[in-house]
Amino acid sequence: MTAHATHSVIGAADIDDVDAYMQRLGQGARDAATAMRRVDTAAKNAALTAMARHLEAARAEVLAANARDLERGRANGLDDALLDRLALDEARLNGMVEGLAQVAALPDPVGEIDGLRARPSGIQVGQMRVPLGVIGIIYESRPNVTLEAASLCLKSGNACILRGGSEASESNAAIAECIRRGLEEAGLPAAAVQVVATTDRAAVGRLISMPEYVDVIIPRGGKSLIERISREASVPVIKHLDGVCHVYLEAGADPEKALAIAVNAKTQRYGTCNTMETLLVDATLAASLLPRLASAYAEHGVELRGCERTREILSDVAPASEADWEAEYLAPVLAIRVVDGIEEAMAHIERYGSRHTDAIVTENYGMARRFMAEVDSSSVIVNASTRFADGFEYGLGAEIGISTDRLHARGPVGLEGLTTRKYVVFGDGQIRS
Amino acid sequence: MTAHATHSVIGAADIDDVDAYMQRLGQGARDAATAMRRVDTAAKNAALTAMARHLEAARAEVLAANARDLERGRANGLDDALLDRLALDEARLNGMVEGLAQVAALPDPVGEIDGLRARPSGIQVGQMRVPLGVIGIIYESRPNVTLEAASLCLKSGNACILRGGSEASESNAAIAECIRRGLEEAGLPAAAVQVVATTDRAAVGRLISMPEYVDVIIPRGGKSLIERISREASVPVIKHLDGVCHVYLEAGADPEKALAIAVNAKTQRYGTCNTMETLLVDATLAASLLPRLASAYAEHGVELRGCERTREILSDVAPASEADWEAEYLAPVLAIRVVDGIEEAMAHIERYGSRHTDAIVTENYGMARRFMAEVDSSSVIVNASTRFADGFEYGLGAEIGISTDRLHARGPVGLEGLTTRKYVVFGDGQIRS
Repeated sequence: MTAHATHSVIGAADIDDVDAYMQRLGQGARDAATAMRRVDTAAKNAALTAMARHLEAARAEVLAANARDLERGRANGLDDALLDRLALDEARLNGMVEGLAQVAALPDPVGEIDGLRARPSGIQVGQMRVPLGVIGIIYESRPNVTLEAASLCLKSGNACILRGGSEASESNAAIAECIRRGLEEAGLPAAAVQVVATTDRAAVGRLISMPEYVDVIIPRGGKSLIERISREASVPVIKHLDGVCHVYLEAGADPEKALAIAVNAKTQRYGTCNTMETLLVDATLAASLLPRLASAYAEHGVELRGCERTREILSDVAPASEADWEAEYLAPVLAIRVVDGIEEAMAHIERYGSRHTDAIVTENYGMARRFMAEVDSSSVIVNASTRFADGFEYGLGAEIGISTDRLHARGPVGLEGLTTRKYVVFGDGQIRS
Repeated sequence: MTAHATHSVIGAADIDDVDAYMQRLGQGARDAATAMRRVDTAAKNAALTAMARHLEAARAEVLAANARDLERGRANGLDDALLDRLALDEARLNGMVEGLAQVAALPDPVGEIDGLRARPSGIQVGQMRVPLGVIGIIYESRPNVTLEAASLCLKSGNACILRGGSEASESNAAIAECIRRGLEEAGLPAAAVQVVATTDRAAVGRLISMPEYVDVIIPRGGKSLIERISREASVPVIKHLDGVCHVYLEAGADPEKALAIAVNAKTQRYGTCNTMETLLVDATLAASLLPRLASAYAEHGVELRGCERTREILSDVAPASEADWEAEYLAPVLAIRVVDGIEEAMAHIERYGSRHTDAIVTENYGMARRFMAEVDSSSVIVNASTRFADGFEYGLGAEIGISTDRLHARGPVGLEGLTTRKYVVFGDGQIRS
């Protein structure tokens, strides 16, 4: 196998055999992960602080590398949204430096022991939080993600292999160099953070099929990328699929809260996974609330698509098709359905939702309790906007993604989601009889 | 596809299309899992108690079915170990009835909310423990596992599809009927526990590749079965691979504790996954301890295989080969290696261990602390026998298996391991600004 393109990073010169190259990265990461188990919080924070300093010092080089990526991207006809995500400027660099300081300030999850208790045999048993090991992250051409992912994996005591989009390869190489210097300065193994220095797509295929070297893969990007990686990986994958989020305005809703939450959940940002895509309105509220909602949405330029009962009240709304109930619009479009009670609302969510984030607005205690217990989503919300489903709003301090999986991590994934727990037993010579 | 054999359980008569049959089970389980979210602790306990009553009432039928399985097994030349695991008698039935009462007495993990705290926005955020959904369990011809797995999945609020070994098919069908009556009596959906009623091997292939209906697969059995299922499954698998467990007698060990633990960890039971397979002895202790250990092991009839330094002290011990360091003997055989200090001991464990359970014996605080932090196993033990690594000894109340995975559940898996946590948000009209 021959590399289609290589770039100016350490070791990139001799990537002519992608398999062997990825094997080297894997072995290096595995060794680094073992060494990382001995590293204390102070050393990890020292590395993060040193990385920030080296990034400050290399501002000009990083921006120049990014300019070359942007130029090549424009020449290759990248669209404006992609170019925007690829672009770095002084403000974004400031944000990256600031992000490192924030991660350094977060409590270290490693070593925490939960539930330590004595057993009748005389042993004490608890669960200790430890790093996952080696984390592979596959993401799009967003150079800030390189630094963010590196900092979260490092703080949680993991080694990581980062594979960003090829359009950002020069930016990533420049950032990787700052990371490497920071690790070196703090006396941590350089292989604790490795940025894949080939744009050969075969590298991704290898990364997701080396269970001997990689403990978990976190893909960040579009649904099709994530689905493909999940299908092909022989390493466990923490997935973030789509967010088809609902707000249900229950019969007992306070109308003002209902209005505020339904508008905020749709319009506060359109492109995020926790944005509401379908509004469910209890039949008892439809006549009074729908006209007010329609005019609020009209002010924001949101296009409405409704069920038949919605259209009886809002006659100029377009009809919603089956595809609308399944749609993650990520745009100023909203599907609206009138439902008869909580059963019908929950059945709709069960059938069409993506188990990401769903909210109920109600002042009825029993209804709130039922919705909480029975809706099977990674975040279930009473009387607040779906837009709160986010690692920062939840107080995780940082977020590597939002998991739509059921096992391991569900919902926003912070430092804890990058760790696992082993059992620890403290004895005093006990044997089993 | 045609069923190779079917047995006298509900619906078994019409299993001529295994794909369609498994699809029906899957859809049934999915619907049951949704219904189970509404079921309270009292109803689950009522079902467990009713199952126990129906099992008592059906003793004769269950034993008769088991006798037919045994007869067929003998005719097919099953070995004694397999026949022993297949066999039920009054005592084992009593144990099964007692097991149901114990699971009923365990605290219900579902609905528990951890870490609920207020955020600056005014919302309160916590994590609620909820069932995993649908659990598929694939196991050998041990009819008691049918009841045990059913009871644990039920108590944790899951629906399950159980696929036991074909040699136990009549026993399993008789037990399934007791389970069904118990569910019915408590008003729970019959599809909350479904026992696959065909011995066609294609059923396993379908079970592990229906992510739309099955949320997790737990295989119980030999390593090759588990590896094959993990390789082929498109559903997440909670694995229990081998237990190559170590005890390291560190230089600072109390000699009496060292002797007691080293003997107990090997000889208390030979066939269990938490039995020690390799003993690491610090060089400073070798001359004084090895002869005492050798005579203790000789009393138990344990065959020793040693490194060169071991054989300098114990001259009639056979030499250990590379294969011995990797072996899970599950037999009265022990590999012994003399090591120079904790680094060499941990390097050996890292290289040859299976990350199941490893112990250190030492009175040295710093050494205990290092071993705890750096050994990457599902259970890490100081001054106690590896044989304690067990759900009952750890106080989980029950155990569906021991996970050697890193994600989700690691170590003994009890009711908590059969649940997941979703975020719950309690607001009062909050919107995001």
